[in-house]
Amino acid sequence: MQPKYPSDSLTTLTDIVLPGETNPLNNLFGGELLARMDRAGSITARRHSRRICVTASVNHVAFNRAIPLGSVVTVEAKVSRTFKTSMEIFIDVWIEDRETGIKSKANEAIYTFVAVDETGTPVAVPPVEPQTELEKLRFEAALRRKQLSLVLAGKMKPHEATELKALFIE
Amino acid sequence: MQPKYPSDSLTTLTDIVLPGETNPLNNLFGGELLARMDRAGSITARRHSRRICVTASVNHVAFNRAIPLGSVVTVEAKVSRTFKTSMEIFIDVWIEDRETGIKSKANEAIYTFVAVDETGTPVAVPPVEPQTELEKLRFEAALRRKQLSLVLAGKMKPHEATELKALFIE
Amino acid sequence: MQPKYPSDSLTTLTDIVLPGETNPLNNLFGGELLARMDRAGSITARRHSRRICVTASVNHVAFNRAIPLGSVVTVEAKVSRTFKTSMEIFIDVWIEDRETGIKSKANEAIYTFVAVDETGTPVAVPPVEPQTELEKLRFEAALRRKQLSLVLAGKMKPHEATELKALFIE
Amino acid sequence: MQPKYPSDSLTTLTDIVLPGETNPLNNLFGGELLARMDRAGSITARRHSRRICVTASVNHVAFNRAIPLGSVVTVEAKVSRTFKTSMEIFIDVWIEDRETGIKSKANEAIYTFVAVDETGTPVAVPPVEPQTELEKLRFEAALRRKQLSLVLAGKMKPHEATELKALFIE
Amino acid sequence: MQPKYPSDSLTTLTDIVLPGETNPLNNLFGGELLARMDRAGSITARRHSRRICVTASVNHVAFNRAIPLGSVVTVEAKVSRTFKTSMEIFIDVWIEDRETGIKSKANEAIYTFVAVDETGTPVAVPPVEPQTELEKLRFEAALRRKQLSLVLAGKMKPHEATELKALFIE
Amino acid sequence: MQPKYPSDSLTTLTDIVLPGETNPLNNLFGGELLARMDRAGSITARRHSRRICVTASVNHVAFNRAIPLGSVVTVEAKVSRTFKTSMEIFIDVWIEDRETGIKSKANEAIYTFVAVDETGTPVAVPPVEPQTELEKLRFEAALRRKQLSLVLAGKMKPHEATELKALFIE
Repeated sequence: MQPKYPSDSLTTLTDIVLPGETNPLNNLFGGELLARMDRAGSITARRHSRRICVTASVNHVAFNRAIPLGSVVTVEAKVSRTFKTSMEIFIDVWIEDRETGIKSKANEAIYTFVAVDETGTPVAVPPVEPQTELEKLRFEAALRRKQLSLVLAGKMKPHEATELKALFIE
Repeated sequence: MQPKYPSDSLTTLTDIVLPGETNPLNNLFGGELLARMDRAGSITARRHSRRICVTASVNHVAFNRAIPLGSVVTVEAKVSRTFKTSMEIFIDVWIEDRETGIKSKANEAIYTFVAVDETGTPVAVPPVEPQTELEKLRFEAALRRKQLSLVLAGKMKPHEATELKALFIE
Repeated sequence: MQPKYPSDSLTTLTDIVLPGETNPLNNLFGGELLARMDRAGSITARRHSRRICVTASVNHVAFNRAIPLGSVVTVEAKVSRTFKTSMEIFIDVWIEDRETGIKSKANEAIYTFVAVDETGTPVAVPPVEPQTELEKLRFEAALRRKQLSLVLAGKMKPHEATELKALFIE
Repeated sequence: MQPKYPSDSLTTLTDIVLPGETNPLNNLFGGELLARMDRAGSITARRHSRRICVTASVNHVAFNRAIPLGSVVTVEAKVSRTFKTSMEIFIDVWIEDRETGIKSKANEAIYTFVAVDETGTPVAVPPVEPQTELEKLRFEAALRRKQLSLVLAGKMKPHEATELKALFIE
Repeated sequence: MQPKYPSDSLTTLTDIVLPGETNPLNNLFGGELLARMDRAGSITARRHSRRICVTASVNHVAFNRAIPLGSVVTVEAKVSRTFKTSMEIFIDVWIEDRETGIKSKANEAIYTFVAVDETGTPVAVPPVEPQTELEKLRFEAALRRKQLSLVLAGKMKPHEATELKALFIE
Repeated sequence: MQPKYPSDSLTTLTDIVLPGETNPLNNLFGGELLARMDRAGSITARRHSRRICVTASVNHVAFNRAIPLGSVVTVEAKVSRTFKTSMEIFIDVWIEDRETGIKSKANEAIYTFVAVDETGTPVAVPPVEPQTELEKLRFEAALRRKQLSLVLAGKMKPHEATELKALFIE
């Protein structure tokens, strides 16, 4: 299959935080943010694969900053690496200051989606070809994350995870 | 105030249509689309003015195509013209074919927002300077729409609406 | 088809404003009001035509007054005029003072719905016969609005819009 | 306090059943109907008393007929009787056939609301004066229901509940 | 059918109160609590009968204490008695103090569910065998409530409701 | 601080899957499940610490099985290990077969919450003392996960992560 660029399937979901989406501290409720990232990520996976895509796992989400009621929140989802039938999607979350317009990073997450056909059977997806420095870094790291995920799930022996192992042994 | 370009405050809200957002025909419920456009438009108004913005009116919304359950919907909101304290926001709604990736126009809407200070008093907003052909066309048409809106509200006499009147008299 | 009166299909949707339906200023969120008006209007269209009805356009919505959290809001939808397969629905929104019980007008909107059969094909609707003074005024104005809508959509030449043109030429 | 009529505070909440409000059998989810009746009933209590009102109890709700997706549902709430600080509200729920327009009764419920001041202390409410035959019947029965509720809560001895007792002894 | 114990089908739904679920006084909205109890009760009915279950009636709900925003709310639903095809479900609602961890009773409700087959026809359910003191008390009282419900619905003559009648006659 | 057992703060959230919570394949929408797990996990963290708790990260979520519309879903959240001010919460998700009543594992997730005081400053939490075999296994693994999380965040050098490193070097 023809490789695609991450920018080909970039998804931007900019929205505000309404009172019905907050937690009792008046910040965006974590579950609502997880849901928005899931929706944006699944659109990116679908745009990259042109297939129906289902969430396979959430690999990491860091809630670095609370997002107050009334904020403008931008969720950006990009393919960071593909495997046979799965796509790792990197999601960056930004908020912007109303008065200065300056954007700052609020959260970051990594989700994995699998492409399936109408019967739910996984199907192959096109490879992704990273272009920017950041895309290349995330592409490299994705392999270690994939191995880690397999090791944690007991589907790969630690000593077989060569890229991951290299991290711990100089 | 320094003029800004429409692209400076462009807002993109890409999201899917979930079952809880459909009407009994399994298409995106009209009220839900009106709400998404309102959110995207208010973000654009806020980005342009860097003020709190409230919806003043919905001037026109054409529901040309039904948007089926599961669609990827992109709502794009851009400032088309500003008046003293108000901004006309033009909103384009696109859906994309999953298999071909081709985007097609589903709806179009025009909303007006007013910038206010903390006490709710309207405040001046920066002018907008259209750049593309489409932005220029919409900028021109906005004045006629403004006059029309004032005429319909009984706040301007029809014969004073010179741009609008010119439409009807060769 | 037998004409019907506007009162035959009047729809009243009285409800309160809960915290999950507000904007960050603690007033009813514009998108939520647009959705309530869409629901009430579609019921009126359905009662008048006894057909499935879909939203064709929102012609005008004026947000004159903010509606605070906890308000009792009454949305009243009435057929103002019918065309071959479409119905213009006029929607009045009222809020009432808790202590005095006095109702005051908060907003006003005009939506257009189209009646369709099971295959989605537009079907003819019964005419409406206005009775009160206000119903008659709105019935008259609806024709000008219809022409305006066609002119704005490029489906009618301005000089053919005779009722509308008359507004601008004494 | 000046008595009021039930019709003075009648509340009508007509709305449709959207897919997000159904149960897995594609009928209106019971919890959603309970919520709509609670909102309509609280508006009636507030209109009658012109006070803040809180739900004190749900005395009886009969779900006689399933309400399918897409139905037009009318919830009508009326004061049936008042006590010192509380109001019994009788709620009738109707659905209507789209093609014939005929309304039929789907459910019926009895809620009790208490009027409170800003500190949450119960305050006296005006009496209600029933007018129609049905209003009079429900007014009479309300006293027996009140006694029953007190007996069930252990706040009244069965033999003191004279109206209720009369039901069982000829 | 083999009798079951109430504990076999006990359902626990512990959740928090988010801002989108409150009323204008910042307490859990009554309708939302009614919905949560309906969901928990229907799960208990389904676990007891292993059938599809639909809400038949809400027999009594007492809102004794307001439940503030941010509370942890536990809804516990247990079968109190079964009749031929219906199950009376007793629901206890608890809130807990964050600092001390002490739970206190906030509300109590009685719902009735009916088991149905795929065609919607009521089907027989297994009997329930109460074990604790409280379960036995509620089992006894359920018969009086059943008679009461039949009397109020006009389906049983008061003098036939022997258990109920006994309450009023020494 | 006095250690506590995992069972002291176990949280059970049993609920059904309604149509408004599904994805276009009629299974529970991933974002909704992430939200339910976040709510259950935050209650467990709060019960363990008796403090306000905020989501710090989602460390791993595996979506092993789709959860169909109408399912009864049980989310169980337990403290697996505590660090100075944070708590790792292990979440197991079960669905049950309606006819046989048999429960099967559908998903599993690990979230981390931080306890804060009223000013948002992190505060110490009591240690947890695992009791069952599974609790002990998860307690052990939590240290490796913690190191992994620090390594991935660049806050710990890989060679300092002794427990983690041991996995890769025999």
